[in-house]
Amino acid sequence: MPPADAEGFHADNPATGEPLPERYPVADWAELDRLAAGAAAAFESGADTAAVAAFLEGYADRIEANAADLAAVAALETGLPEEGRLRNGEVPRTVGQLRQAAAAVRDGGWRRPTISDGNIRSILEPLGPTVVIGPNNFPFAFNGACGGDFAAAIGAGCPVIAKGHPHHPGTSRKLAELMTDAAAAAGLPEGWVSLFYDCAPEDGLKLARDPRIAAVAFTGSKRAGLALKAACDETATVGHFELGSENPVFILPGALAERADAIVEELAGSALLGGGQFCTQPGIVVLPGGQAAATFPAALQARFDDAPTPPLLSENVVKGLQAGVKTLTDAGAERLPAKGPEAQPGFRFPNTVLTATAEQFLADPDLFQTECFGPVSLLVTGTNAEQRRALASELQGQLTVTILSDTGGSDDEEYGPLAAILRRKCGRLLNDKMPTGVAVVPAMCHGGPFPASGQPHFTAVGIPAALTRFTRLACYDNVRPERLPAALRD
Amino acid sequence: MPPADAEGFHADNPATGEPLPERYPVADWAELDRLAAGAAAAFESGADTAAVAAFLEGYADRIEANAADLAAVAALETGLPEEGRLRNGEVPRTVGQLRQAAAAVRDGGWRRPTISDGNIRSILEPLGPTVVIGPNNFPFAFNGACGGDFAAAIGAGCPVIAKGHPHHPGTSRKLAELMTDAAAAAGLPEGWVSLFYDCAPEDGLKLARDPRIAAVAFTGSKRAGLALKAACDETATVGHFELGSENPVFILPGALAERADAIVEELAGSALLGGGQFCTQPGIVVLPGGQAAATFPAALQARFDDAPTPPLLSENVVKGLQAGVKTLTDAGAERLPAKGPEAQPGFRFPNTVLTATAEQFLADPDLFQTECFGPVSLLVTGTNAEQRRALASELQGQLTVTILSDTGGSDDEEYGPLAAILRRKCGRLLNDKMPTGVAVVPAMCHGGPFPASGQPHFTAVGIPAALTRFTRLACYDNVRPERLPAALRD
Repeated sequence: MPPADAEGFHADNPATGEPLPERYPVADWAELDRLAAGAAAAFESGADTAAVAAFLEGYADRIEANAADLAAVAALETGLPEEGRLRNGEVPRTVGQLRQAAAAVRDGGWRRPTISDGNIRSILEPLGPTVVIGPNNFPFAFNGACGGDFAAAIGAGCPVIAKGHPHHPGTSRKLAELMTDAAAAAGLPEGWVSLFYDCAPEDGLKLARDPRIAAVAFTGSKRAGLALKAACDETATVGHFELGSENPVFILPGALAERADAIVEELAGSALLGGGQFCTQPGIVVLPGGQAAATFPAALQARFDDAPTPPLLSENVVKGLQAGVKTLTDAGAERLPAKGPEAQPGFRFPNTVLTATAEQFLADPDLFQTECFGPVSLLVTGTNAEQRRALASELQGQLTVTILSDTGGSDDEEYGPLAAILRRKCGRLLNDKMPTGVAVVPAMCHGGPFPASGQPHFTAVGIPAALTRFTRLACYDNVRPERLPAALRD
Repeated sequence: MPPADAEGFHADNPATGEPLPERYPVADWAELDRLAAGAAAAFESGADTAAVAAFLEGYADRIEANAADLAAVAALETGLPEEGRLRNGEVPRTVGQLRQAAAAVRDGGWRRPTISDGNIRSILEPLGPTVVIGPNNFPFAFNGACGGDFAAAIGAGCPVIAKGHPHHPGTSRKLAELMTDAAAAAGLPEGWVSLFYDCAPEDGLKLARDPRIAAVAFTGSKRAGLALKAACDETATVGHFELGSENPVFILPGALAERADAIVEELAGSALLGGGQFCTQPGIVVLPGGQAAATFPAALQARFDDAPTPPLLSENVVKGLQAGVKTLTDAGAERLPAKGPEAQPGFRFPNTVLTATAEQFLADPDLFQTECFGPVSLLVTGTNAEQRRALASELQGQLTVTILSDTGGSDDEEYGPLAAILRRKCGRLLNDKMPTGVAVVPAMCHGGPFPASGQPHFTAVGIPAALTRFTRLACYDNVRPERLPAALRD
């Protein structure tokens, strides 16, 4: 959490590194207690699906109508571009997610209503009050107060206590105003949706363990996420966690021989998108040996040098990159000579290519999977097919793994056994395409084996599947017809 | 674990209390390591759905063909009746579960194959090697080597390392012979299924944390289960736990006025079924005040006195009952005068009715939910509607909650608000029916909020839903057609 005084905390302008003037309150336990009580009372009083759907749609409309204002504040607080990203990229995605969730609420088929012999019936029902904690890298699409987890928990029928990210509190404040207004217009009970800006870590853990809280959804750093997961585990609070991923890209020899220049281009575009601050950023790239690969690292660094070094989200991101790169170079990775960041103010870090050999990586695979959240990619060089399989076996759980193979078929023999290993390491396996785009479609999996997510059965993106994370299975055995939920009647 | 010497451990005959002659080995870590390596290697080499389905069916056939032998051994080791329960009750249920799982494997629709725009496809795939730990109370239907969790994990496509319960090792040995034979006949890779009889607790926890183990399914005591859950949480091993339930029965005033005698009869039958050793045994019964209720406790105790006191599963069950009843009476519950157990040898405990007032229960609700696994029910007496709602609010998570209301409608006003509270406390809500039967139908939920289960989204009984517990969501993004799983091709 940022330092706070009696007047609260402030965000910084990443483009200048200077503090922004507005102050925001740090919620103390009394405030969190009040929010938990409000959410619990709201859940007790209940909300019908029509009100929930109307809220999601009304909120989407309000965000859309205020897109320019919202994007301007978010740009100031995050350093992300207003045009091309926030106003006409993330805001429409966010609005679309809320509307898809509303449609899912109205449809209801994803609740899997089931009627069996003997008058036994079951359906997925909402878990109850849910705390949604969003990350700093998507101030709209993953915001605790309007992003994917918010839309999913609300769509499932749960009240939400959102924790805004303390690095974009002004964005969250504007969203909360629209959210509160939409909730009142839709007739949701008071307390169904609420927001706090920040809290002491111990109060956040206490909230996760509070019996009034049924579920927690978290996207963010491994350190904070693991502490929260431990708190949830203690009380068996349902927890959904997305804790980061290196998104390895395996470039097979035939693919490199066929289209090295195109791969450099695509990879640079994907690795540097949004300052490299995507949870699906390709942070590890596995290169084959041979002639075509020898020039790849320098070619990628050249492409990195040509790209801008935009302001990063916070000073913490820069410090994290410095620490991560130091860990890797201390372990023996080589940092390619790079153009420094342009002489601009703000939170910057050079676009950085590192290299390590397969032998180095395999000697300490966990160390070489140290996360560098930002515009940094580690190339594992000179690998043969056997080493690529060994590398695959040593990977931690990933959101995505990508395999690039040639179109002529020369990589096909290697593909099968390698993909069999990688398939079990990730939520989403890609061919011939960079991993940074995460389409909001029913078949998406944005999840994967730990630590990419906490439970690989679920996905954080993709509607209606994402909604099921916030449900429990409710069976009605011999319950009289008039007492059944409407969806379970004959 | 039972005491073991160099020759291994032995089971007891619960009907006599005497040790049985056969010795069984306690697996050391080297043995568990060998089983984990075998399961991991088997999973790597893979098994097609036809082989998995053939195994489930071949195993079911073999169990059916050996029903009499199996039931005889299980009866000797558990004290449960061979006829009316084991041979013609549990064995057919178990065989039916295995066959339902085989049908689900062949059907595959429960894997939710989904194809979206942009060539993005997903499906539920098996998690990997799974440790299944069964309880002592259902030597077939919940046995780690052939019961519901076994059928579900195998049906999902996972290799299984089964831990037999150390109180019926001879039953597990006979099952393992049939299992191994069926696996070989179906062409499953060596190591896909295996069994161990017992291990040191610390080795069991080490196995749960082992990276080769993808999932653990446990049914049994809260003490052992919570230790195992903590181990799974540490490494994010997927864990499914069923840790016990008091299965409260709320008798509303109209129902009691209408049919008190019938309720006494039904309740006694349910509470004493299998010596009361059902996870859905009604251990807490909430009675209204008034005339009709005044005679209920003595009437129930009279019915309990008329019933036999069959041998219980183990000396531990008897000790657990002694301790549980002492906890409740120390807290102020009254133990009704009961006929002692008949002067028979073996592990016995009198069929016992306890009473406590609503005020007593509400003064320390967790204490009054102390589990008494066996033929014991606690009646909470003299409650009014407000107290019943307060009691409902204080319940821990339950597998089942039952509400008995009158057929004339006089309880209808109370039903709604009470059921709204109870609905969130249990996996299965019943009307006018005792909870002990758990039908293996698609709409069943045998699960519920913690501690009834570890994750209320899932069910341990009911096919195909139970299979999904052992899967992860696998997305294929732009993967070439010939590389897709068959179920995801156009």
